[in-house]
Amino acid sequence: MSGAPDAGAPGLREVGRSITRKDGLAKVTGAAQYLDDLVIPNAACAALVRSAYAHARLARVDGRRAAALRGVLAVVASADLGEIGARRFGSYTRDQPVLARDVVRFEGEPVAAVVAEDADTARRAAALVEVEYEERPCVVDVERALAPQAPLVHATPPALGRQGRWPPVAGTNVCARVVIDQGDVAAALARADVVLERTYTFPRVFHYTLEPHGAVASVTADEITVWTNTGHPYQLRQELADTFGLPLNRIRVIVPYVGGSFGGKSFPKLEPLAAALAWKVGRPVKVLNGVEGSMRTNRRNGATCRVALGLMRDGTLVAKRALVLLDSGAYADSGPLVAEKASVRMLGPYRVPHYRIEVQAVYTNTTPAGSYRSIGGPQTVWASESMMDEAAEALALDPVELRLANLAARGDAIRPDLRPMDADLADDLRRLAKTMEATEATRGRTARIGRGVGVAIANPADLPISTSIVRLHYDGSVTVLCSTVEVGQGLHTVLAQIAAEELGIAQDLVTVVSPDTRFGPYDWSSGASRGTTIMGSAVQRACRDIKEQLRGLAADNAGVPAAEVEVAGGRVSVAGRAPDYGEVIREWWGRPAGEVIGRGYVRNLGPSPAFWEIGMGGVEVEVDRETGEVRLASYTALADVGRAINPRQCEAQDVGAVVMGLGHTLWEEMVYSESGSLLNASMIEYRVPLATDLPARLETVLVENGDGAGPFGAKGMGEGGGIPVAPAVANAIAKATGVRIRDLPLTPERVWRALREAPPRKDGGA
Amino acid sequence: MSGAPDAGAPGLREVGRSITRKDGLAKVTGAAQYLDDLVIPNAACAALVRSAYAHARLARVDGRRAAALRGVLAVVASADLGEIGARRFGSYTRDQPVLARDVVRFEGEPVAAVVAEDADTARRAAALVEVEYEERPCVVDVERALAPQAPLVHATPPALGRQGRWPPVAGTNVCARVVIDQGDVAAALARADVVLERTYTFPRVFHYTLEPHGAVASVTADEITVWTNTGHPYQLRQELADTFGLPLNRIRVIVPYVGGSFGGKSFPKLEPLAAALAWKVGRPVKVLNGVEGSMRTNRRNGATCRVALGLMRDGTLVAKRALVLLDSGAYADSGPLVAEKASVRMLGPYRVPHYRIEVQAVYTNTTPAGSYRSIGGPQTVWASESMMDEAAEALALDPVELRLANLAARGDAIRPDLRPMDADLADDLRRLAKTMEATEATRGRTARIGRGVGVAIANPADLPISTSIVRLHYDGSVTVLCSTVEVGQGLHTVLAQIAAEELGIAQDLVTVVSPDTRFGPYDWSSGASRGTTIMGSAVQRACRDIKEQLRGLAADNAGVPAAEVEVAGGRVSVAGRAPDYGEVIREWWGRPAGEVIGRGYVRNLGPSPAFWEIGMGGVEVEVDRETGEVRLASYTALADVGRAINPRQCEAQDVGAVVMGLGHTLWEEMVYSESGSLLNASMIEYRVPLATDLPARLETVLVENGDGAGPFGAKGMGEGGGIPVAPAVANAIAKATGVRIRDLPLTPERVWRALREAPPRKDGGA
Repeated sequence: MSGAPDAGAPGLREVGRSITRKDGLAKVTGAAQYLDDLVIPNAACAALVRSAYAHARLARVDGRRAAALRGVLAVVASADLGEIGARRFGSYTRDQPVLARDVVRFEGEPVAAVVAEDADTARRAAALVEVEYEERPCVVDVERALAPQAPLVHATPPALGRQGRWPPVAGTNVCARVVIDQGDVAAALARADVVLERTYTFPRVFHYTLEPHGAVASVTADEITVWTNTGHPYQLRQELADTFGLPLNRIRVIVPYVGGSFGGKSFPKLEPLAAALAWKVGRPVKVLNGVEGSMRTNRRNGATCRVALGLMRDGTLVAKRALVLLDSGAYADSGPLVAEKASVRMLGPYRVPHYRIEVQAVYTNTTPAGSYRSIGGPQTVWASESMMDEAAEALALDPVELRLANLAARGDAIRPDLRPMDADLADDLRRLAKTMEATEATRGRTARIGRGVGVAIANPADLPISTSIVRLHYDGSVTVLCSTVEVGQGLHTVLAQIAAEELGIAQDLVTVVSPDTRFGPYDWSSGASRGTTIMGSAVQRACRDIKEQLRGLAADNAGVPAAEVEVAGGRVSVAGRAPDYGEVIREWWGRPAGEVIGRGYVRNLGPSPAFWEIGMGGVEVEVDRETGEVRLASYTALADVGRAINPRQCEAQDVGAVVMGLGHTLWEEMVYSESGSLLNASMIEYRVPLATDLPARLETVLVENGDGAGPFGAKGMGEGGGIPVAPAVANAIAKATGVRIRDLPLTPERVWRALREAPPRKDGGA
Repeated sequence: MSGAPDAGAPGLREVGRSITRKDGLAKVTGAAQYLDDLVIPNAACAALVRSAYAHARLARVDGRRAAALRGVLAVVASADLGEIGARRFGSYTRDQPVLARDVVRFEGEPVAAVVAEDADTARRAAALVEVEYEERPCVVDVERALAPQAPLVHATPPALGRQGRWPPVAGTNVCARVVIDQGDVAAALARADVVLERTYTFPRVFHYTLEPHGAVASVTADEITVWTNTGHPYQLRQELADTFGLPLNRIRVIVPYVGGSFGGKSFPKLEPLAAALAWKVGRPVKVLNGVEGSMRTNRRNGATCRVALGLMRDGTLVAKRALVLLDSGAYADSGPLVAEKASVRMLGPYRVPHYRIEVQAVYTNTTPAGSYRSIGGPQTVWASESMMDEAAEALALDPVELRLANLAARGDAIRPDLRPMDADLADDLRRLAKTMEATEATRGRTARIGRGVGVAIANPADLPISTSIVRLHYDGSVTVLCSTVEVGQGLHTVLAQIAAEELGIAQDLVTVVSPDTRFGPYDWSSGASRGTTIMGSAVQRACRDIKEQLRGLAADNAGVPAAEVEVAGGRVSVAGRAPDYGEVIREWWGRPAGEVIGRGYVRNLGPSPAFWEIGMGGVEVEVDRETGEVRLASYTALADVGRAINPRQCEAQDVGAVVMGLGHTLWEEMVYSESGSLLNASMIEYRVPLATDLPARLETVLVENGDGAGPFGAKGMGEGGGIPVAPAVANAIAKATGVRIRDLPLTPERVWRALREAPPRKDGGA
């Protein structure tokens, strides 16, 4: 399945090897410098005063007592920031102020900041800031937000951001509305032999990266510099340029080591505030969240999916109608993009001739929601893959066979404007089933064990825009400038392998550096499983540019036409000689000097998206009927990766995705009170998966057909593994118990209640 | 002479304007971060134990008392550094250890280093390190160093460095020997009507940058990072790679704001030691000189020039023979390069059919000498231009006329292997003389006022190797990556003007960034007045590359052939539209996204050198016969710059060069005792020019014939102004007093003694 750790894929030397990750040593030895490790000279520290209410008018912010504390430099509210305080940021919807202005829209929203010589003083002073609120009625879930006469989170509809396409709907709490459709759904549903109508809900969950959000900003007359653990240095650059009215060349974003993102560090977070404070006090300012702050900074969009599915008796899907309501919280963040992606993901990887999918991103008075590992995927696939099993049961068909009968084949159109299916899904699913059977054969079955299969196709974000610079030094070593962020996904290692393979050199001669927008060229984002495919292609192209230049240099050196020069295997063949790259460069420059600079641009890789991310999962569960506890006997994850550049990293990504998926499946949920208070903002009260929760057996299968649009046939992965977890588990529970649960997480309490309420089944299992 | 401050040169918009320097605001407001301002997390501080002797065997280094001090992390001597302690660095000659090993070769050589939690502890502990020396006989000047049986500074001849061409002469103290010759000198001298034989000496002087040398180094498993105020990040990268046995991609050199270099921060200085200490203690380590330390780190090569000059009665030069002995100190540094450049500079800008110039760089037990504003120039031009006046006097000719009769004409070969003269020297000299006459006409003459003219041609260092990356962002703003260091010469401003002019945009949309070898591409050096011409050309080429790419992008956008696209004036004309650059980029990427990356390589700009740097100077002096004090009534400097990219900066460079030249002319000299102790290592005892020393009138003339090989006809300047100062002043003194002095500096005592010893003259003046 995966390449041996010390040999490349067939015909390849560096690609396909499970080399040790490039950032591993620094991370395990503590040498890696994360944001909080940086020491910025003369930096002051900020502490935030956060709103006590979910929705209120800000009547008064009085910082006088705080300002009197020794060591306090400034107490800053929106009004103190002049024009910057009045501006709104947001890549999709310009709705978020640097500090709450006149109105607070969620509990925990930053209302004021205290800047002091040290963090402790800032914190103590922040507690002394007096804020008067006039509480307003709030909406803490989508149902209430969409009710007639609901209080509006934004009284006037915010403007679109630079990347925005879906405007807010005036007079409502709808932040963005996306509809995709095809055929005649009503007629098709009427014709169908069976129509199921179901509602599934997906909780609001938190990324829980080990490292919370933070930023240090410095503002000089020449430039604004922000050190931040963002996953989106270039999206952030634009937002800062807009906030401060500066050209792009005067914004510098530096990203040190990052302790996880999972989408939660995409787009601006604390950076505009840090920059505004630095501008205000004339010194660098550091703002760093704790976990409680980060849980009030960003989360995943919760979802309610109302789905009607029509099938013929033989199992053929004929129509799907869905309304997906995303709980996007108080500010849009990437909610509109999540809505767009959710629409296609709601379709699933199936041939559905008639469909209408509507997705609404809805403002509520809760933590703003944004990107989270496969945006819009887990929420919608939770519904659609649960429903496939429900349909199979209704039709008395095998759920796997039902899927096989409907899966899009290679080349099938998902939608006319999108890339046709580029994987062999049926093969993948059969392989998953076979692996599970092999696993199952090793143990007996009991009434408590059920099996379920979830299939997921992620629809990677559709902006394959990356550029890279690759520098070949005169000793043959290489530096890759890349602005995709190494957030822990192993990207730097993979890019080094791609560059080494393309150049025909050893990967240990390649360094991939972390983003600094002053130097490293443009990249769209670190997300959507795009690094290997999109940035990998940019790096590959830059390496090809280098090889083309080397032909020219060697031709110059030898006085022959470039056509007589061949570059292969790390050597340049010319006029009977085969110098290595370093020799060619040194000879051309006449010295141990100079370098060759390659550039790679990617703006598309064929039809959009550049690839379909394929992840599938199957699970065997044991349900304790007395307690409702669900234990995982085994879990099998399959990722159709095209080519595993680094198999061990692919496997680790898939395992990580599965474990993260277990979180929202079994335990995780951000709980808000009626008045919009977040009730479980701590590691104690917010339950994430523990090592002891892992499935007894966790298999990963990598499918490598070499059919990806990325380098050496690779396609993206790393998100797909988490998407099918919830429906697979719910499907397995249904098989084990006969009880279908449509609300996540599947906590013991929820399972136990469902078991109690369900009519007794005869066979006690599937 | 210079363009008006708010208008470009004819036909140009940004070039020729005296815009405010880009780094000005940061520097005057204190926002600029110099090396000592940086805070590197967890950095320890080192203090150096420096040799008390100029030449000794190191018998014992005992750090036990020092190590016992609280806060001390390590006391490190050469033996503690293993293989690294045994290695030698040096770009031309590998002769310098990281810490003295077995032998010390100059007073102040680092013998050990104490690394401690803070600088004060390190200093106190350094005083506790006990060192036992066995003193050896030393040589503190070139005469003694070249005497038979002289003690050898290096017992075994060191190996050549990577850039080295001139090996040490075994069994002697000759570090490097360079000879250039042409014709039959002996025969020509025999035929000459007049032969003058003279010896001139030039003192050992110190650069006295406001900021001393320093470095902070961090060593991880992945890379060595050095923050340093070097002028040579890429030469340093190579030396660090060699010292630590690493490929180039694993060495990172970051250069913050630099407080002056003048050549004194070229090549490695404290950086290898800082890195070795960081490696040893496993933490970042900072080493920072004070002035006393920097005076024991680097200086200018002192010189003794023995010259024989043969002329015909009409003033025609027929032959020159010279032996130049450079006092290079204990380690070669760039001494061999200085020797090479001194050889050509000794020839002068004249037609000399027969010559033999021999230059020896000689080891002595004194501070190592290296590059210093026009390497080898002031020392040799001091001799040759003094001699032109002596010859004029001997032949009863006007000194200016004598020069005009012999100056190389445009296109004349200086040497067959070098670029023919590329300036109109006679025009330049006439213009200088005319400017001086205009100045003189405004006042009366007295016996104490004399006039002198010095003419200098610098021979810029012959390695036009630069690369640059220029990034055009999608809003039309620009970032220039350039590894030439802004050492105060105004380079960033000039490069911004060049990029803006070439791209047809406003200069305030251009940012030029400081070097970081991780990102910014290769550059040979920051010196030899090469930045504007060589790096400027690399930047210009990168901008042209961008324009060519823009044609392709716009053609793609419009669906027309690239031939139908025109790029001019910051706009792209295509299919009846004229979008600006940002629009073209955004349209091509389909978003506000992406960028265009231009690259520029320069490996030669025609025959070597890329240009002849032309500086001339004339002076009127007043000599106080009672005190020997020389006051400057007026000084006129002429620089033939081809094109002044920024006239005000050119003028400022010339003024700075003149003032620096006044230092070695009138006051500066590092004084060593017989036993090799430096006696005046402080601002009190080492006399630099003061504001009150400036000439009453200081004129600068910029000649702009648009004939340089650099962008828009520019050539380098900034060193030439300092070269003619000393001979011009000495010539003027001779005219004023009839007394010729051939040793610098022309201190009141030296002048007074010379006046006393000279036979009285009849006319009391020239």
